[in-house]
Amino acid sequence: MLKIYGDLSSGNCLKVKWVCDILARPYQWIAVDTTKGETRTSEFLQMNGAGQVPVVVLGDGRALAQSNAIIRYLARGSDLIPSDAYQEAKMDEWLFWEQYSHEPYISVCRFQMVYLGRTVGDLDPEKVKRGYAALARMEHHLAGQRYFTGDRVSLADVALLAYTRVAHEGGFHLDGYQAIRRWIADAQQALSV
Amino acid sequence: MLKIYGDLSSGNCLKVKWVCDILARPYQWIAVDTTKGETRTSEFLQMNGAGQVPVVVLGDGRALAQSNAIIRYLARGSDLIPSDAYQEAKMDEWLFWEQYSHEPYISVCRFQMVYLGRTVGDLDPEKVKRGYAALARMEHHLAGQRYFTGDRVSLADVALLAYTRVAHEGGFHLDGYQAIRRWIADAQQALSV
Repeated sequence: MLKIYGDLSSGNCLKVKWVCDILARPYQWIAVDTTKGETRTSEFLQMNGAGQVPVVVLGDGRALAQSNAIIRYLARGSDLIPSDAYQEAKMDEWLFWEQYSHEPYISVCRFQMVYLGRTVGDLDPEKVKRGYAALARMEHHLAGQRYFTGDRVSLADVALLAYTRVAHEGGFHLDGYQAIRRWIADAQQALSV
Repeated sequence: MLKIYGDLSSGNCLKVKWVCDILARPYQWIAVDTTKGETRTSEFLQMNGAGQVPVVVLGDGRALAQSNAIIRYLARGSDLIPSDAYQEAKMDEWLFWEQYSHEPYISVCRFQMVYLGRTVGDLDPEKVKRGYAALARMEHHLAGQRYFTGDRVSLADVALLAYTRVAHEGGFHLDGYQAIRRWIADAQQALSV
């Protein structure tokens, strides 16, 4: 059976859980406490040299890391990946954008507030600015279409939902982001999360 | 014909050029000067709302952004993507890792030195530390296997080669990284770049 090493308060880990739940794929969840150095043991580093959750271990013992690579692998052949090659590439465009221009700001500010106990005033203003820039781009895009790759929910929505729906825990206010709030509701319903 | 909007001194843009050259895919290169705001015009933002190069425009006028999403799309069905689903997922693991844990340090330090004229002493020590952590992980991995996903070169090598081979321009010394230097030589030869 598939094993998922993860932390339920991490959006990156939730992405993997959600995809397994949606696809009704059985798994064993192994809780990892990142604050206690559990991702830095030699056993863990053998699964993922980056020392991060999530990691999945397949039935044959082979490991795979990086949330978006994992969900891409688990969801292959399913409706969560557009069947058209160009639309699949647009999904990938959002997956890479999420890890480069969204997660490092929206998720990191949340981490600093929730895990490290910082206040909004302690946050790096550059990170806050870039987080709002990411939200502005999402708002602009979602004003024109229902989901990130069109009318149907895809892994792009899974990846972006994970931290956007808890953006307020990192001090980001979604009050002025009507399209994002509409999309969060739609995506949560479509994905049953 | 495929159009590539890019900057030849950007590793992210070179990835796209290299893949087209390797696959003998004809393209029109459109030089974009990012320092002159050319990625911030409304015309450019319509192609890529993130305001970054590279962007490709396909023959039918549809645009695609994010270097690793672009090369994944262009190389589909070629030997640059492993045919085994798990190995393809491992390639994706490295592609996402490159954008999250390598490019933001190795490339950004180079950008600050080459484009902004900073010296090594001006660099953010945290960025330097994380850049060397990325190199250490690569060194460890490449000591055990020829390329990132095994015996054959793949898009993981394309993506990681782009900035690693010019890491010294960002102040990173590869003297102690024998496996990386061996891999740079092998990958450059295998990819003819």
